[in-house]
Amino acid sequence: MSTEKCFAKGSAAPGPVPEGQIRIYSMRFCPFAQRTRLVLNAKGIKHDTININLQNKPEWYFERNPFGLVPTLETPAGEVIYESPITCEYLDEVYPENKLLPSSPFGKAQQKMMLEHFSKVTPYFYKIPTGRKNGEDVSKLEAELKEKFAKLNEDLVNKKTKFFGGDSITMIDYMMWPWFERLEIFELKHCLDSTPELKKWTERMLEDPAVKATMHSEDTYKAFYKSYTEGKPNYDYGL
Amino acid sequence: MSTEKCFAKGSAAPGPVPEGQIRIYSMRFCPFAQRTRLVLNAKGIKHDTININLQNKPEWYFERNPFGLVPTLETPAGEVIYESPITCEYLDEVYPENKLLPSSPFGKAQQKMMLEHFSKVTPYFYKIPTGRKNGEDVSKLEAELKEKFAKLNEDLVNKKTKFFGGDSITMIDYMMWPWFERLEIFELKHCLDSTPELKKWTERMLEDPAVKATMHSEDTYKAFYKSYTEGKPNYDYGL
Repeated sequence: MSTEKCFAKGSAAPGPVPEGQIRIYSMRFCPFAQRTRLVLNAKGIKHDTININLQNKPEWYFERNPFGLVPTLETPAGEVIYESPITCEYLDEVYPENKLLPSSPFGKAQQKMMLEHFSKVTPYFYKIPTGRKNGEDVSKLEAELKEKFAKLNEDLVNKKTKFFGGDSITMIDYMMWPWFERLEIFELKHCLDSTPELKKWTERMLEDPAVKATMHSEDTYKAFYKSYTEGKPNYDYGL
Repeated sequence: MSTEKCFAKGSAAPGPVPEGQIRIYSMRFCPFAQRTRLVLNAKGIKHDTININLQNKPEWYFERNPFGLVPTLETPAGEVIYESPITCEYLDEVYPENKLLPSSPFGKAQQKMMLEHFSKVTPYFYKIPTGRKNGEDVSKLEAELKEKFAKLNEDLVNKKTKFFGGDSITMIDYMMWPWFERLEIFELKHCLDSTPELKKWTERMLEDPAVKATMHSEDTYKAFYKSYTEGKPNYDYGL
């Protein structure tokens, strides 16, 4: 995986997508883009990476993705796909190696419903740090997050499986992982204290090669988030 | 399709789903549930309907759908599927008659991206009537909605097709339709005045048998929305 310096406003658009590869427009520290990076890695898909300066976006990027967000995929034929769950499902359908979504319609629907539930969890990773920064009492928000974690823990207990879709990693694990990887940086690791099965899941995830390939060291994360909270995100930190 | 009186708090749970059918938990006037009703009708799927009183929900309903929302599907095997796009995709995968989603991964991704864009349109159908009710100036919101409609119009012009996925109705048309059916009730029909292709699309949609089978008369809608805005929604109006 290439890890190049980000493209900012005023930059020239990158050249065509190399034949036999797929391109991901990403940002090295974005949890949504990491979903797609995890799937690219887990499935062993040849890809090149163009990182985007999200504070100072290149003009040409809006032609790829009208929302101006990452991740976006681009094929050599010029097909463009965005929104992280859509990109991941697309990759899983096009590349048959190591299928991550179940083949049955109900199995697929179950994973999508889990993702829908998880979409109510991610906002806490922004609300709690922002609240703390503003000197607000975040204990209620933390209690709510712990309740969401308790539900996820209960799900693993009931299923008696190592991962959320069975005893091996499936799509839903990768969809949820990026936020758990950032628990320490957001000072939320204590929220896992009463959910031992969920904690074990995070430990198992850390052993996964795709997780290892896409994650940053804690120091790198901390340095990036420091620059981010100061309003001057250093997207190229450590390059 | 059965159109029975709604189940409210305190009601007994309905009996098992009849063999060879699928059950939809719905609310007769809900645009999200109508998406699933459109797909059930378009594909000729045998189903029974249980309507839910959304203001006064039956306790047992939360066991079916923890969000307590409609639509929800239930199979005779007790499988439960909720969230309108997930229910519709599930139906299209399980029932091969009259496929509504393209078979190619990119075609499918395109429909999902269109749906993502449309998810930014639906909030206006609540914000504008609520703003008006509160005596606020909604001209800015109306201008924004017109801009969204202009984008949809441009999409049809560029594609040179009768519908959003080609010259026949596909999934994305059914996903968007319920809100257009309600333009008159929300007093937003004038927002179509500068978008002739989109207007023609609404006229074509009105000729579709599934649309005809799931829609209510303007008088019925008006009576329901009157009761709704007065805080006492009459879910059984007209039964």
